[in-house]
Amino acid sequence: MNAMRELSVELGERSYPIFIGEGLLEQAGELFEKQGIGKKSPVLIVTDEHVAVRHLDKLVDVLQRSGYQTESAVVPPGETSKSLAVFEDLMTKALQAGLDRKSTIVALGGGVVGDLAGFVAASYMRGIKFVQVPTTILAHDSSVGGKVAVNHPQAKNIIGAFHQPELVLYDLNTLQTLPAREVSAGLSEVVKHGLIWDSEFVQWCDDHGDRLLALDPEALGYALYKGCTVKAAVVSRDERENDLRMILNLGHTIGHALEAVAGYNELLHGEAISIGMVGSARLAVELGAPQEVLTVTKRVLSRVGLPVRLPEHLDTDRIMEAMMHDKKFLEGTMIFIVPTAIGQVEINKSVSTELVRKIVEQLKQEAVQA
Amino acid sequence: MNAMRELSVELGERSYPIFIGEGLLEQAGELFEKQGIGKKSPVLIVTDEHVAVRHLDKLVDVLQRSGYQTESAVVPPGETSKSLAVFEDLMTKALQAGLDRKSTIVALGGGVVGDLAGFVAASYMRGIKFVQVPTTILAHDSSVGGKVAVNHPQAKNIIGAFHQPELVLYDLNTLQTLPAREVSAGLSEVVKHGLIWDSEFVQWCDDHGDRLLALDPEALGYALYKGCTVKAAVVSRDERENDLRMILNLGHTIGHALEAVAGYNELLHGEAISIGMVGSARLAVELGAPQEVLTVTKRVLSRVGLPVRLPEHLDTDRIMEAMMHDKKFLEGTMIFIVPTAIGQVEINKSVSTELVRKIVEQLKQEAVQA
Repeated sequence: MNAMRELSVELGERSYPIFIGEGLLEQAGELFEKQGIGKKSPVLIVTDEHVAVRHLDKLVDVLQRSGYQTESAVVPPGETSKSLAVFEDLMTKALQAGLDRKSTIVALGGGVVGDLAGFVAASYMRGIKFVQVPTTILAHDSSVGGKVAVNHPQAKNIIGAFHQPELVLYDLNTLQTLPAREVSAGLSEVVKHGLIWDSEFVQWCDDHGDRLLALDPEALGYALYKGCTVKAAVVSRDERENDLRMILNLGHTIGHALEAVAGYNELLHGEAISIGMVGSARLAVELGAPQEVLTVTKRVLSRVGLPVRLPEHLDTDRIMEAMMHDKKFLEGTMIFIVPTAIGQVEINKSVSTELVRKIVEQLKQEAVQA
Repeated sequence: MNAMRELSVELGERSYPIFIGEGLLEQAGELFEKQGIGKKSPVLIVTDEHVAVRHLDKLVDVLQRSGYQTESAVVPPGETSKSLAVFEDLMTKALQAGLDRKSTIVALGGGVVGDLAGFVAASYMRGIKFVQVPTTILAHDSSVGGKVAVNHPQAKNIIGAFHQPELVLYDLNTLQTLPAREVSAGLSEVVKHGLIWDSEFVQWCDDHGDRLLALDPEALGYALYKGCTVKAAVVSRDERENDLRMILNLGHTIGHALEAVAGYNELLHGEAISIGMVGSARLAVELGAPQEVLTVTKRVLSRVGLPVRLPEHLDTDRIMEAMMHDKKFLEGTMIFIVPTAIGQVEINKSVSTELVRKIVEQLKQEAVQA
């Protein structure tokens, strides 16, 4: 077993630690206690049916042995659980379980469970404590930073809050059963954190892509630690997304449009973002950045098994239209996060719609590397 | 016309002003602008059917003349609108109206509208700006302090947030059409603010009760100013109800139980709280406070037309049972806010259930003053 890594999200009195390591579920009781999660009031664990089968019994057992009273709520897997209807069911469950103002809600699962359980914690009795126990690589992103939400039938993540957890507990062992495609998709946001902030880490990903794909615990622990470090640094400087936090959207303007047009089955979020990041790199080169920005971006994404070319059958007009509906669109020009070098980006608020269309067309011809 | 009164709720970067005066609706445009409510993004006014008839057209007209784009949403009057279903309808309305992150939601109405619209503002896109335009006396209490919520079928106010408004705009003219019974019930929380914090103001209410009942604008403006001042002082010291803010619950432990047992039609909130405050004063005397605490409390509440005796037909066992379900109950003893003198209270965490039962019985025999 490798050593546990720890880092802190610095937000004044709302600061909290992230623990990353193998076998951390077994230490949940001690770590909860260390972070001041009380034992007098019941704890509600929220998870989904897939994760429940693998990890729920263990977490319940560990917490109960440490003296916690736990209740569990298991929701169906997938994005459809991020609804106000499931939110209300969880409120009922919280009431029935006797949760009070000193209770804690634990999100055991991926991003859907974290967003949903987090918004329940943000709203129950106007806000109670909350712990993130992510079980996917992708959730290294959503579990840090306090953004929680459910969907409205007409818009994703439109009903939510900023509610920071008390701690994030990342057990690398829970990642060992992830399907290969989800591993790569999760690494997309890891690489993104390098591309916006840390060129050395991008180089490291380039050198160690195969270890990551093989779920080597030491490599995975390091990569998640670095990814969380960047996310924490950005969030510490701009908790409520007034300016800097926007750089976390690298690749997301094109990516969200691709998800919407392709349907959520053809492209996973991480895959769409990967293509979007190649688009941003192309845009960067068009705007004067060195060619290396594009070649390195493509190479490192390919290394971790991610697509860099836009599927040709996706209609450019529909992609452009989907982008127009995106929040980042503003009167004729578009807001883009654009790399200036590897590990550096800027917020460009006046990218012309025509240039974006050209990039989308180019992305369909992108050379795929071996 | 009397001068406008202004006071500030001091909460660091979340500080905001309360404006109280006659004809302030006509000045809404300027006051919004002064507080930084932007004109580029649409404003959504939320109100109920009763208030809409009287004041909506004027507010819309004034804001549009100042250059604001407004949309309106009218909900049914009454507590049943504080539901997740109406909350979701308002989210749909906000989306359709094109509200963005710089938009503002205006609550025009009493406590129900303020709580509901406030929770929509707290959650839409994880929180947008919010303005309170209270149109009842009771709402002087709920519109200050940032507590917003909707009800769960099994519990009041259980789903909510702390979300401070940008400003509170209190037009005394909107109060002139209130029915007499609601005037008295609203004054209950005004008197409460005196009883917990300011003995001179209690004396003033005692001296000027008839002017308040006659809705004399100068007296009403002063009383609301004083009530809001106390509320603001308490909230500034304890925004999230960790300790001090609990003193605002004077009379509420018994009061909530009476509301639950009597049904929400027999006793208005303010009436139930009035009887609860007499109960707290009785409790205080039992615990050693001077007799004057009881006599003055009863006298001032009577002066503003409020009941001081508990209706005999309400069953003591059921009242006790309702109190046990209250959040303020803890293992055999109860938490009560207890006066130590007029204008001073303490938080007593070990009041015996037996003593409370005795007080409830005594409240049924309370002598009513002329």
